[in-house]
Amino acid sequence: MALIFYERVGHEGRRPSPFSWRIRYALAHKGIDFDVHPVRFADVETIRRLSGQHLTPIIDDDGKVTHETWDIANYLEHRFPDRPSLFGGAAGMGMARFINDWASAQLVPPLRHVIFADFPAVLDPGDRAYFRSTRERALGMSLEAACADPVGKLAAFQQACVPLERTLSAQPYICGPEPAYADYSVFSVFQWARLGSPKEVVADGSAIAGWRARMIALFGNLGDRFPGYPT
Amino acid sequence: MALIFYERVGHEGRRPSPFSWRIRYALAHKGIDFDVHPVRFADVETIRRLSGQHLTPIIDDDGKVTHETWDIANYLEHRFPDRPSLFGGAAGMGMARFINDWASAQLVPPLRHVIFADFPAVLDPGDRAYFRSTRERALGMSLEAACADPVGKLAAFQQACVPLERTLSAQPYICGPEPAYADYSVFSVFQWARLGSPKEVVADGSAIAGWRARMIALFGNLGDRFPGYPT
Repeated sequence: MALIFYERVGHEGRRPSPFSWRIRYALAHKGIDFDVHPVRFADVETIRRLSGQHLTPIIDDDGKVTHETWDIANYLEHRFPDRPSLFGGAAGMGMARFINDWASAQLVPPLRHVIFADFPAVLDPGDRAYFRSTRERALGMSLEAACADPVGKLAAFQQACVPLERTLSAQPYICGPEPAYADYSVFSVFQWARLGSPKEVVADGSAIAGWRARMIALFGNLGDRFPGYPT
Repeated sequence: MALIFYERVGHEGRRPSPFSWRIRYALAHKGIDFDVHPVRFADVETIRRLSGQHLTPIIDDDGKVTHETWDIANYLEHRFPDRPSLFGGAAGMGMARFINDWASAQLVPPLRHVIFADFPAVLDPGDRAYFRSTRERALGMSLEAACADPVGKLAAFQQACVPLERTLSAQPYICGPEPAYADYSVFSVFQWARLGSPKEVVADGSAIAGWRARMIALFGNLGDRFPGYPT
């Protein structure tokens, strides 16, 4: 039985979740077949019954259910040890966790303040009110207020990208000559911005721009398999 | 002939350079014998003749001279392939470079604004005026002005440490179960603060505090081999 990938699906088949993107790339890296079970924010009770919590993605490997992307990546690494490694060993797994934590702590928060006002349009219309109310409560302000001063907000995000730009000026991927999980994890944040907003958050001609293009092109143009931001 | 390690030495044998610390730990990790050739800022012409540039540390491996810490770490990894790896393979080397770049871009700048006014006291008296004038020119202000608002400056540094605290709450070292070069690189920044200022920059009881204590204790208490901040 193929592995089942519970993935949040947005407006007209869009895939706006960064967490789904990193697992999609991890599954492709390992060459694992899977069936998609699309979910919406509104399906929270289904997700909770399945996994005991409300976040996606979730994988169901013949009854073994795993949620939380870092745990899913680790599950895949150990379940399919003969497929290409996502981490390159114990030291690599440790460093990939740090890079994952770095992206969550230092890229995602400033990027919310760039893209959140644009984001509802990529969600299923039935999910937009839920997204707005939960995010506005967490931010303590409206999505539009959070995204005020767009020039300053974009500059804050690009400042957070400085170490990434430096690394990618010296080597093609975060994981060196070939991409692996740390690339997928960080790329998923850029993919979230790319599919969730019409704004360009990456400087033209930057090393990050080149890396992002290579990442999109991997696995038969996986990064372009689904529709972009609605025009 | 033993490898020669050109290392900046401060007041009464102190070792204030973060760059030297990461290489000292890398040499210990690989179990490489070396002779120390102490240098001061005032020895800039000697350093330039040897390496064509003015920064330390430098290693001289039987006439093969290498400077820039990242390049030294790579040199040691390839020169001593049978010794314990600093990176754990190609993916690990890629990720270690990113973590090295992260520390340089996101930890060092805010930490300068915490410790720089204290720092001259750990330098050889003959180096203090050079340090002050070059750093004040780079900062565009006096060391004391750069370190104004110490509470706010420490908070900015600790904010930059958030991903590190998160990772070290989940695993003992940045490189997972055992330390390797990414740990040495990041630790060297904390060691710079610890030996270069009387201020405590790490929160008591934090995961970073526990990791720093483990790092100090490695290789026969290497982190405590030289005198601390002058009292």
